[in-house]
Amino acid sequence: MSTATSTVRPVLVAGSWRDADYQKTFRATDPNSNEPIPVDFPVSSWEDCDAALDAAVDAARELRRLPRHQIAEFLERYADRIDAAKDALVEAAFRETGLAKSPRLADVELPRTSNQLRAAAAACRSGSWALPTIDTAAGIRSCYESIGPVCLFGPNNFPFAFGSVSGGDFAAAIAAGNPVIGKANSSHPETTRLFAEQAAEAIKETGLPPATVQLIYRTSHSDGERLVADPRTGATGYTGSRSAGLALKAAADKAGKPIYLELSSVNPVVITPGALAERSDEIVSEFTTSALMGTGQFCTNPGLVLLVQGEPTDAFISAIGDKFGSTAAGTLLSPAVAKSLSASVEKLCEYGAKLIVGGGEPESGRCAYANTLLTATAKDFLSNPEGFQTEAFGNASLFVIADDVDQLCEAIRHLEGNLTGCIYSDKQGGDDDACEKIASELTPKVGRLLNDKMPTGVAVSAAMNHGGPYPATGHPGFTAVGVPGSLLRFGKLTSYDNVRPHRLPALLQDNNPSEAWRLIDGKWTQANVG
Amino acid sequence: MSTATSTVRPVLVAGSWRDADYQKTFRATDPNSNEPIPVDFPVSSWEDCDAALDAAVDAARELRRLPRHQIAEFLERYADRIDAAKDALVEAAFRETGLAKSPRLADVELPRTSNQLRAAAAACRSGSWALPTIDTAAGIRSCYESIGPVCLFGPNNFPFAFGSVSGGDFAAAIAAGNPVIGKANSSHPETTRLFAEQAAEAIKETGLPPATVQLIYRTSHSDGERLVADPRTGATGYTGSRSAGLALKAAADKAGKPIYLELSSVNPVVITPGALAERSDEIVSEFTTSALMGTGQFCTNPGLVLLVQGEPTDAFISAIGDKFGSTAAGTLLSPAVAKSLSASVEKLCEYGAKLIVGGGEPESGRCAYANTLLTATAKDFLSNPEGFQTEAFGNASLFVIADDVDQLCEAIRHLEGNLTGCIYSDKQGGDDDACEKIASELTPKVGRLLNDKMPTGVAVSAAMNHGGPYPATGHPGFTAVGVPGSLLRFGKLTSYDNVRPHRLPALLQDNNPSEAWRLIDGKWTQANVG
Repeated sequence: MSTATSTVRPVLVAGSWRDADYQKTFRATDPNSNEPIPVDFPVSSWEDCDAALDAAVDAARELRRLPRHQIAEFLERYADRIDAAKDALVEAAFRETGLAKSPRLADVELPRTSNQLRAAAAACRSGSWALPTIDTAAGIRSCYESIGPVCLFGPNNFPFAFGSVSGGDFAAAIAAGNPVIGKANSSHPETTRLFAEQAAEAIKETGLPPATVQLIYRTSHSDGERLVADPRTGATGYTGSRSAGLALKAAADKAGKPIYLELSSVNPVVITPGALAERSDEIVSEFTTSALMGTGQFCTNPGLVLLVQGEPTDAFISAIGDKFGSTAAGTLLSPAVAKSLSASVEKLCEYGAKLIVGGGEPESGRCAYANTLLTATAKDFLSNPEGFQTEAFGNASLFVIADDVDQLCEAIRHLEGNLTGCIYSDKQGGDDDACEKIASELTPKVGRLLNDKMPTGVAVSAAMNHGGPYPATGHPGFTAVGVPGSLLRFGKLTSYDNVRPHRLPALLQDNNPSEAWRLIDGKWTQANVG
Repeated sequence: MSTATSTVRPVLVAGSWRDADYQKTFRATDPNSNEPIPVDFPVSSWEDCDAALDAAVDAARELRRLPRHQIAEFLERYADRIDAAKDALVEAAFRETGLAKSPRLADVELPRTSNQLRAAAAACRSGSWALPTIDTAAGIRSCYESIGPVCLFGPNNFPFAFGSVSGGDFAAAIAAGNPVIGKANSSHPETTRLFAEQAAEAIKETGLPPATVQLIYRTSHSDGERLVADPRTGATGYTGSRSAGLALKAAADKAGKPIYLELSSVNPVVITPGALAERSDEIVSEFTTSALMGTGQFCTNPGLVLLVQGEPTDAFISAIGDKFGSTAAGTLLSPAVAKSLSASVEKLCEYGAKLIVGGGEPESGRCAYANTLLTATAKDFLSNPEGFQTEAFGNASLFVIADDVDQLCEAIRHLEGNLTGCIYSDKQGGDDDACEKIASELTPKVGRLLNDKMPTGVAVSAAMNHGGPYPATGHPGFTAVGVPGSLLRFGKLTSYDNVRPHRLPALLQDNNPSEAWRLIDGKWTQANVG
């Protein structure tokens, strides 16, 4: 039953902006004022999900028949439209997220977003991402191909670059040949709607199936679980809180549906005594910039620092404390983020962490919380590793101080899976032995190991892994950032055995006009077969 | 508490053959006589699993430090030992499984097994499987690397080639750099033990960590679930019944541990009227051979045939019925398989399938059941698609007869995920339009699409996909057969960002002495960097 009125935003289903089927509505909050923004968005009923799934199944079938370059053209056209709509997108995102208009939204995240779409378009056009493999002697050929309708749940912290109808997951799912059903993040629904408008126009301009991109804003938890487990769904991508993600994972797992999650990560940074002896001031500056960037609301924010006790460590902590204390606290994304950050800091203190600077209650006039630095001994950490790994999402970091490198390694052994792990050490190699020990413990725990570099930059590179062992993600074999790797999540492996040549997918035919890299009889080549 | 006596077989834990910790024992059955074989095997307690996991963690750490060629040498040495121990292995497997000694066990499965190990060794040595990727401009390099201890549960139907300490999963897990904890299939524990003996010797000869290969024979269901979910476990491979597999999957999923499953598949074969008009006799012969091969106990056995009604179809069914009726029923793997086959056939009859030939009770003097052919209309099938997809594992097939191609396509739309799907059609292309329709419905449902060929041959090819959508497997992006693809299941993706050159894994260093194929700045090459 629809109770839509003209003041409630429409959903995008099957190519039409239409009234949602809903009982309730919600509003986003302006984090700069802590006031609700007076625009109503529907909480869609199952009927909306059902209609979107039906339309997506048809779109998936049509997309499989289209030449790859047509899908690539859509991604490029959409990227151009995003660039052209920059001002409106930045304005909406600033209002809904409080992220700085410049450079962050306008000059960093927006170009990253349109360039991701262009990189995905190039991958789609060439087809190399699909690892086409040809065994001429056995008469078998294989590649990854579309997996079916992809449901995407975007996070609150990157309204453009990880947005459910604009971000990396979106680009990857579409480039792999799949239609997308986007679920807007409830903290920036209007921003997401503006993206979907551009996508819908780009679809018309390039002749893709109308339901290639669909948008709903919110569902009940149970309908979300039903969506990811529905027989019509091919796969799901989710970035957000661990609790909501695990509920979706349980539902998808039970139905045997792939789900790719990015859940939480404290991103351990190890700083050796050698590094501090060599360049403490430099690292103070690098760390503070990384830790407070975007008010600490990055998936790869350095939330946990591991140090060896001593005077240089005390001085380092004191210098970071001064920096944190003297830097104005940025705006957080939403009242929920501020509340959760405050609760996490309280928990860490309960477990025995010592507050060096910050803490307290969130600000009342806007969404904000004091820059916060906590310390604990490795002994404390080892007595409650789970508790001390409580993610404090935002501008707070916990420093864990070990008696020596062995105890530091023991603490690493108790870490959960993380997206990243960093080792800062003496650049002259004076502590290479210790670093080898540390790396051998840290590497299996993380998706990306860094040296002498903070983790907050996530380059869109073919060699990037934005992933890691559970609970950072749901599977340690996949990356959410980087082309072509990120596309593989949304591909189904298919072998063609003795299939007649004219029936093979274009990518596996003898001729290779797109110059895809293909593994032919054990050798990677861009050549034709034969 | 151990109650071991000298008559109970020891387990292989941490490099020693030692008394198991157990309360109960079990015996395998000789399917040729339906009599228990008088050798006792322990049902291990959690203490055995726990000890194996601890040892595996240490072995995993050591394996990460070893050069790849040393792991490859182990696989090759083990392969040679298997070839040399052929007679004893064949004898044991014949006694425990009833599979023919020749050609099946001695001349097909055994050489396949040792050659799989050699192919995995070659992949391990070169490192190309790990998709090493280098972005020189960004200073980021990535590859797949070991995921940690791998638990393997092998099936009953391939005691060598899919065995938990000898088969494809084993070869892949080891070649990817991981130790293996094998759980023997309870129907052939002695065969598995003989393999583990050879593996243990090869480990000594090549200096690998003693716990690289460990063996237990059976656990309680709850300990099996605990094993796959244990924090020390990296990943699990399972091939077997759907119910046991789904229980393990639920446990592993909940703990965020990758699990690769091969569960069940009816392997639909579509035969068009054009194919029957052209070469009905030929297809009768191909189908019968494939359907009764190994007494129908292949994962890719053609259990469901889809046809269009008409006189040629009637004649085809009648000819198959004659062949089934006049061919002696082979021996089944175990009393459980015979019982389950009989129950499945009964269920299909209950749902409305018509018995053309076969059916009835299992034979009493040995494990066997009459070759069975059933038919149903597509209308019946569509009224209960789940029921009619009951897997009748063994020498039974169901033929579903549609009114026309459209109804046949509708039936395909109701299929679950399968390992394979075949289309037999007019070789002159007379029914290509129908085939296009059929293929567009069938391809998304299967891991491997075949033309004019039965599905039972699973070539060890780089282009092979022995996988498919749920419930054929747990994830449609992975293959259990084929090198290098099968190794990726047991790999963790790791990025090295700004990591100092001498600290990079060998595979990602500038020099590339193993001539691994690497994706350097967008181009696949075997060259060094720079």
